[in-house]
Amino acid sequence: MRKPKIVILGAGYGGLMTAVRLQKLVGVNEADIVLINKNDYHYETTWLHEASAGTLHHDRVRYDIKNVIDTNKIEFIQDAAVEIQMEEKKVILENGEVAYDYLVVALGAEPETFGIKGLKEYAFSIVNVDSARQIRNHIEYQFATYNTDADKKPERLSIVVGGAGFTGIEFLGELSNRVPELCKEYDVDFHDVRMICVEAAPMVLPGFDPELVEYAVSQLEKKGVEFRIGTAIKECTPEGIIVAKGENEVEEIKAATVVWAAGVRGNSIIEKSGIEAMRGRVKVDPDLRVPGSDNVFIIGDCSLIINEEINRPYPPTAQIAMQQGELCARNLAALIRDKGELETFTPDIKGTVCSLGEDDAIGVAFGKKMVGGKASFMKKMIDNRALYMIGGPSLVFKKGKFNIL
Amino acid sequence: MRKPKIVILGAGYGGLMTAVRLQKLVGVNEADIVLINKNDYHYETTWLHEASAGTLHHDRVRYDIKNVIDTNKIEFIQDAAVEIQMEEKKVILENGEVAYDYLVVALGAEPETFGIKGLKEYAFSIVNVDSARQIRNHIEYQFATYNTDADKKPERLSIVVGGAGFTGIEFLGELSNRVPELCKEYDVDFHDVRMICVEAAPMVLPGFDPELVEYAVSQLEKKGVEFRIGTAIKECTPEGIIVAKGENEVEEIKAATVVWAAGVRGNSIIEKSGIEAMRGRVKVDPDLRVPGSDNVFIIGDCSLIINEEINRPYPPTAQIAMQQGELCARNLAALIRDKGELETFTPDIKGTVCSLGEDDAIGVAFGKKMVGGKASFMKKMIDNRALYMIGGPSLVFKKGKFNIL
Repeated sequence: MRKPKIVILGAGYGGLMTAVRLQKLVGVNEADIVLINKNDYHYETTWLHEASAGTLHHDRVRYDIKNVIDTNKIEFIQDAAVEIQMEEKKVILENGEVAYDYLVVALGAEPETFGIKGLKEYAFSIVNVDSARQIRNHIEYQFATYNTDADKKPERLSIVVGGAGFTGIEFLGELSNRVPELCKEYDVDFHDVRMICVEAAPMVLPGFDPELVEYAVSQLEKKGVEFRIGTAIKECTPEGIIVAKGENEVEEIKAATVVWAAGVRGNSIIEKSGIEAMRGRVKVDPDLRVPGSDNVFIIGDCSLIINEEINRPYPPTAQIAMQQGELCARNLAALIRDKGELETFTPDIKGTVCSLGEDDAIGVAFGKKMVGGKASFMKKMIDNRALYMIGGPSLVFKKGKFNIL
Repeated sequence: MRKPKIVILGAGYGGLMTAVRLQKLVGVNEADIVLINKNDYHYETTWLHEASAGTLHHDRVRYDIKNVIDTNKIEFIQDAAVEIQMEEKKVILENGEVAYDYLVVALGAEPETFGIKGLKEYAFSIVNVDSARQIRNHIEYQFATYNTDADKKPERLSIVVGGAGFTGIEFLGELSNRVPELCKEYDVDFHDVRMICVEAAPMVLPGFDPELVEYAVSQLEKKGVEFRIGTAIKECTPEGIIVAKGENEVEEIKAATVVWAAGVRGNSIIEKSGIEAMRGRVKVDPDLRVPGSDNVFIIGDCSLIINEEINRPYPPTAQIAMQQGELCARNLAALIRDKGELETFTPDIKGTVCSLGEDDAIGVAFGKKMVGGKASFMKKMIDNRALYMIGGPSLVFKKGKFNIL
């Protein structure tokens, strides 16, 4: 009898967790398992804001996939998915194609620019290792160039961050720690630098406790961040951004660096493959399969799970993706063994911590609010836990965060 | 009786040497000494190619002027000279003016672009700390961006160096050491990178022994440098350079980075001040004074000294500038003491070593040709000697080069 073939697309939190759980659950005689990823490394998406600001080297936020998978059990293919053909049970890759019996789509998110003109062309996004180190270098190049201009251009040292959500705030926390270092390195006066957070919504970090948000804003303001809340970006240009001012007016904010951090959507391959989705996210069945399909799972940022309590989707997080990966592996094992009912997914939100830089954070964990060093410690433990869940203690020792104050 | 006032413009090799010698020779009651420099630091011009390539941090190539001058004897003013008014015996500065009885002009060189279109706008030059770190960051940014381009642009990783003279070759020596590091850092294939040396003259390092030149070219070629000798740059554009090809044709070499290292001229303030000069260099009297003036000295890259043996000007070097500074200080002391004849200047060329990177060089010293580690050792000793001459042993310990293999 032919062994069933399980193909996993993506080695982010969800896909890699599925792979490492599956290699424990399933014997080599039970299934062929293939993991496909664009890079030969996994990166910690939730740490990219640090690499982007330059406070953590980009090699610290990634590790080789072959370090955590058992290559006797899992075949790794470095390639990028282009299209899923569900009827033919195959995936088109950039350099070939692969057939499957069971498919796990864990392709992650893309920036959502909401059709705002110029964002794709002129703004940076914190999406992967490549873009993170580009942002770091772009900002550093502006500092390095400032003193070479015959007429100094203040906009060189202006950095706009679009979005006061999780990513925007965490990036500003790191950036505001990094800027004084850059000033020293490039003989620049700190007062010549501007860090401007522009957010269309009337609040910072929606969904967070207001007291914690107030702390975060005040801490970032102390470090030089300006907030322009309730301000919509109308357009991004090579010179900066155009924002709405009142009902009919607009205002230009000149800035050599614009980082767009105001939202993500699911991978565009989902729509390209004809799967019904909202902004690239598929409202999966409780067992994480695509509605109407019995062999395709979607997990991570491309899946959409409703929080019944508030009747709104959960925001896509690493925490949920990893929990989905664990369950997905169990359901795959059940399927190939023909073991009746599949398990259904319910997120178990243990807490949420938003970093404000190396030694500061806000968060809620175990039902308790916390700020400062305590919250920062919690954040590092969460980061280390993600490593532990996928790669065990050895990965924690190699890549973990131990700079605890 | 009013004390005479000596003003020194520039704290490069020549100006700073004049200052430190003068503070030993002359008592506080004999003269007021003022040193004026744009920055509050001196930088080692002959090390800038290292900071530009990124093989030596820019803070290693500079030190505070106040570390080496005696501020009880010398008043330091941080300002930039704009014009010298010899008849009024004063210097116009960006933020004021200063009168003098004796003036030492040691303002250094500027890049000579020979009127080639686009060079000023689009090419970088290795001229000071600001420009060096800008070049380093520009190149690094290109590497960081390469993998983010949807269609990879090979020209991002092409670096053109205009000029196969001393600066061009020394820069290429460092750059070809740095590129493999950048490839590793940014996940770039070394074979995608191009380093192209374009030189209009039919030879590399004119004036150097042909055997040594052959060694240098072969070493750099091994490290990936392409030479386009006898090839004139016609134009520099935002996309690269246009070079002459045969009699009537031209060829475009696309490159995101063009570094112009094909020649220097004296400071443009010389001409602006109405002093007769050839490309900003003044053929000074044997005692280093401006012809027809009894109180204005010009030393360093703005002075022109004829090598009688070959009836051609000596190339401007740190070695000559420092020797001029020493003699200039003695002549100033003689003048303020009204002690008859001034000394005349004859360069004492002890040797010339051209670095090919951290552990390789070619050179002639004590009449002997040498290559490789031996020449590299000699180069580092020359670099340390320059520090010693100005700041004594403590400066050598602070900033010297001890990475001897």
